[in-house]
Amino acid sequence: MRTSQMLMPTLREVPAEAEVVSHQLLLRAGFIRKSASGIYTYLPLAQRVLKKIKEIVREEMDKQGGQELLMPIVQPAEMWLESGRWHVYGPELFRLKDRHNRDFCLGPTHEEVITILVRGEVRSYKQMPLLLYQIQNKFRDERRPRFGLMRGREFIMKDLYSFDRDEAGLDISYQKMYQAYTNVFNRCGLKFRPVEADSGAIGGSDTHEFMVLADSGEAAILFCSQCDYAANIEKAAVPAAGADPTAQALELKEVSTPGQKTIEQVAEFLGIAPHQTIKTLLYRTDKEVVAALVRGDRDVNEVKLLNALGALTIELADEVQVRQATGAPAGYVGPVGLSKIRIIADPEVMALSNAVAGANKADAHYINVNPNRDFKADIVEDIRMVQACEPCPKCGAELQQARGIEVGQIFKLGTKYSKALGATFLDENGKEKPIVMGCYGIGVSRTMAAAIEQNHDQDGIIWPASIAPYHAIVIPVSAKDEKQMQLAESLYNKLNQIGVETVLDDRAERPGVKFKDADLIGYPLRIVVGNKAMTDGLVEVRQRKSGQTDLIPLDQIPEKVKEILATL
Amino acid sequence: MRTSQMLMPTLREVPAEAEVVSHQLLLRAGFIRKSASGIYTYLPLAQRVLKKIKEIVREEMDKQGGQELLMPIVQPAEMWLESGRWHVYGPELFRLKDRHNRDFCLGPTHEEVITILVRGEVRSYKQMPLLLYQIQNKFRDERRPRFGLMRGREFIMKDLYSFDRDEAGLDISYQKMYQAYTNVFNRCGLKFRPVEADSGAIGGSDTHEFMVLADSGEAAILFCSQCDYAANIEKAAVPAAGADPTAQALELKEVSTPGQKTIEQVAEFLGIAPHQTIKTLLYRTDKEVVAALVRGDRDVNEVKLLNALGALTIELADEVQVRQATGAPAGYVGPVGLSKIRIIADPEVMALSNAVAGANKADAHYINVNPNRDFKADIVEDIRMVQACEPCPKCGAELQQARGIEVGQIFKLGTKYSKALGATFLDENGKEKPIVMGCYGIGVSRTMAAAIEQNHDQDGIIWPASIAPYHAIVIPVSAKDEKQMQLAESLYNKLNQIGVETVLDDRAERPGVKFKDADLIGYPLRIVVGNKAMTDGLVEVRQRKSGQTDLIPLDQIPEKVKEILATL
Repeated sequence: MRTSQMLMPTLREVPAEAEVVSHQLLLRAGFIRKSASGIYTYLPLAQRVLKKIKEIVREEMDKQGGQELLMPIVQPAEMWLESGRWHVYGPELFRLKDRHNRDFCLGPTHEEVITILVRGEVRSYKQMPLLLYQIQNKFRDERRPRFGLMRGREFIMKDLYSFDRDEAGLDISYQKMYQAYTNVFNRCGLKFRPVEADSGAIGGSDTHEFMVLADSGEAAILFCSQCDYAANIEKAAVPAAGADPTAQALELKEVSTPGQKTIEQVAEFLGIAPHQTIKTLLYRTDKEVVAALVRGDRDVNEVKLLNALGALTIELADEVQVRQATGAPAGYVGPVGLSKIRIIADPEVMALSNAVAGANKADAHYINVNPNRDFKADIVEDIRMVQACEPCPKCGAELQQARGIEVGQIFKLGTKYSKALGATFLDENGKEKPIVMGCYGIGVSRTMAAAIEQNHDQDGIIWPASIAPYHAIVIPVSAKDEKQMQLAESLYNKLNQIGVETVLDDRAERPGVKFKDADLIGYPLRIVVGNKAMTDGLVEVRQRKSGQTDLIPLDQIPEKVKEILATL
Repeated sequence: MRTSQMLMPTLREVPAEAEVVSHQLLLRAGFIRKSASGIYTYLPLAQRVLKKIKEIVREEMDKQGGQELLMPIVQPAEMWLESGRWHVYGPELFRLKDRHNRDFCLGPTHEEVITILVRGEVRSYKQMPLLLYQIQNKFRDERRPRFGLMRGREFIMKDLYSFDRDEAGLDISYQKMYQAYTNVFNRCGLKFRPVEADSGAIGGSDTHEFMVLADSGEAAILFCSQCDYAANIEKAAVPAAGADPTAQALELKEVSTPGQKTIEQVAEFLGIAPHQTIKTLLYRTDKEVVAALVRGDRDVNEVKLLNALGALTIELADEVQVRQATGAPAGYVGPVGLSKIRIIADPEVMALSNAVAGANKADAHYINVNPNRDFKADIVEDIRMVQACEPCPKCGAELQQARGIEVGQIFKLGTKYSKALGATFLDENGKEKPIVMGCYGIGVSRTMAAAIEQNHDQDGIIWPASIAPYHAIVIPVSAKDEKQMQLAESLYNKLNQIGVETVLDDRAERPGVKFKDADLIGYPLRIVVGNKAMTDGLVEVRQRKSGQTDLIPLDQIPEKVKEILATL
């Protein structure tokens, strides 16, 4: 393609609406344009990147025995009523009515459609395993769409669903997808980690998130510096619990701590370390108000807390609720003498001796608090955030923290949908059983954005070669110099002929403008045909990523370019 | 792929819901399943066909300089309000609201989105021509979805939009697309005709429909037996008008025709030919009631009539309206003495002399009606249907009639949308002008169905090789015979290695079942490994289309199969 004919509208200014780098660069480099909040048109350059990501995804799904199909975007409400999700799924679900006033929604996901489809076609264990997938636009009416393609309302997903006869089959399907996802993101040239994640309200099932590492990532992840352990910070398990308290228990005593409300203030006031205090936070769930205890130097992990309580929703209690439950103002709450509400404590708290905690009245704390002697916990369970530098729960080496962008998730659904929708099969003994399912998603448009978050500099995008819209751009320094143009054109043709996807910048622009656009768009290779080409037969090949620039004889260009590309 | 692992749910019975062959066969051969009225899931076999059609479309669009992009499915109402179509587009438009109560629709077409996009990016004549296209699900809330994929509510379209500086540019873009469409349907292996079609209310612009020929087609087309003239019957032009009347005009006379209402009855009763009578039909448009006159042996073409009257809607007047306008019951209406309403007459009528027409009272007709003497026409214009066997308007040879399925349409939009939406550019002289546009659609899922309507027999589908889900199926006669299975498997592997997309039927089914499924699904080649393979090293290769069966030595199979495929 020639730039003079391409729809490639680069912008000099950073658009005001764009908060994150990928959004800024996708707009500036002419990859996307907004149609409505969270709804974008993918321009030709973006469409080429998307096609490459989709093709990689397809190949890896197919390699694992996946079969591609295409389900409808418009889904009848009946299916969602049958699964029980029509009334549960919140305002994120785009709903609409047809001309006969029947209810439909725009698919945010396809568990209902595919389970009902499979229910109609699969009768015997012999017909499984089945791995069915599609690549398609999905819809989610986000309350606050933002960050460009990161959190849009219409986006492109690959969703695969596995159907197995039992858990053992599901394990195999899950492993296949784990491998396929690893291959996909490796082939996309991205640095990523599969991390253990929280499986939410369903509970118990395995799930991994695939995180593209980037400082701008929304999610915090912890990974081991030695072994392959990695987890979403919400999921990260604590190391083996500490020993029981051995220090001699001293007498419980109330001390005056006027105006000392935070852990830091109390610890400093009493001349102790924060880890010798008990942090008591009151939460309100959909069922009750509870006191959650973690060591003073720790933070409560609300996801773990929610799961431990078996609750659906959770939030911090307000001032009034705190006073009602404890009689004290916030800042002076503690577990001793707390009788109206349940107490859930982190194991680290139960391992403390002679600790400090609020006394449930203003301006007072207890010292020498000893768990089990001075208070009982109704539940003892890991409810704290793990931090960087703590030991890995798997091997004991030090954990490191990083930020990531979730681009994929694999999930063991089990029989949730097959039971709800009656998707059963007959096993060898003619016994009817529910099909065991998994679901596996990749955010295709999100992967494009994540690739940019991870791979850019102040000049623009740095595409990994495998998903770059084109591999190379040929730039004649002077578009007016006919001989230079001819040379550039012949190079351009040659490279395309040997499968190097090449653009020719034939615009009548200054070289500076062309260089800036080339860097902004992020072609892996920039090939400049200038005076040296005419005088010495040498052409400049610059690698976008490393900045390495080589002068290469004209006749060696095709071969050398292929060589360099293979290393990118 | 092995059939034992494929989701390929064939049915023995013809599903009761399916009226047309393509719908029946798509269901029976396991290509589609219904999710809701007019909304289908494309199963893996269909998805493979769709991918092939899409790829052919892409290549031909790209060849003409098309650039692929991807616009959103969910479109904001503001865009449609700006173009003026929000309130005009009827209940076919799926409308929905987001969580903030803002109006959106599901795109049935993308003129608004693309014109607004281009308005923002194109400033100069230098940036054109631009040919932008996408392949995507489209939505139309049909009143009565039916015929499977023929008239669905969610379907797959390729839509391309051309942007040019002037009509001359548009002509070139239009010709490029005409060529591209011709290539696409040729490469899909379909018999088709591009036919002149009616451009509707916009008027004046060129448009062609691409019709796949099939007896079950919804549209009637006329084409010349000699030259390349072809037109939708609604558009087909009449041959050069006949000479003026030369017979001597006799005296107008009323005759009694008791109970003779139809042209046939009147002609027989009076002993004349139907073409000597005047057929007078009263229509009601959005503006008026009119009398439309065609010769007694002709039919009124309502599309031509609508255009000639410049009306938006048209329907036959009812009994009451007929009586109000003429004083006569239906069957006795004629132009003589008709004063309350306008008369529009076909030129053939004006060329009659001494004709018969209704007398505007019960049981009476006039004979010796001479146009211009006995009545005046307010409008004289071609408003009749052309019929097979009439002379071609281009070369005079005989026209033939066929039925077709519209799978593509190309259309000169002109400046309709660019003016409405303010998409302008500056020409060489710095003068602001509206962009001249064209739009060009291909029904991708419809093409799949049309291919079946054209290519099937009582046993199932007969895919053209270029869009078949697979090229060949290898069937071992006895799945229990280990040696046969090994041989079949090795053939299957070999063929796939050389790019012949091959399925292995490894199911433990009787050969009859496998043959029936193979015919139903319509693999172009069926390769049977039976006893002859073991004894004489011969394998049976049967062509689905011709039924030709060859016994081919095992070692020549790959080469021969490739040869045969090249001829299909």
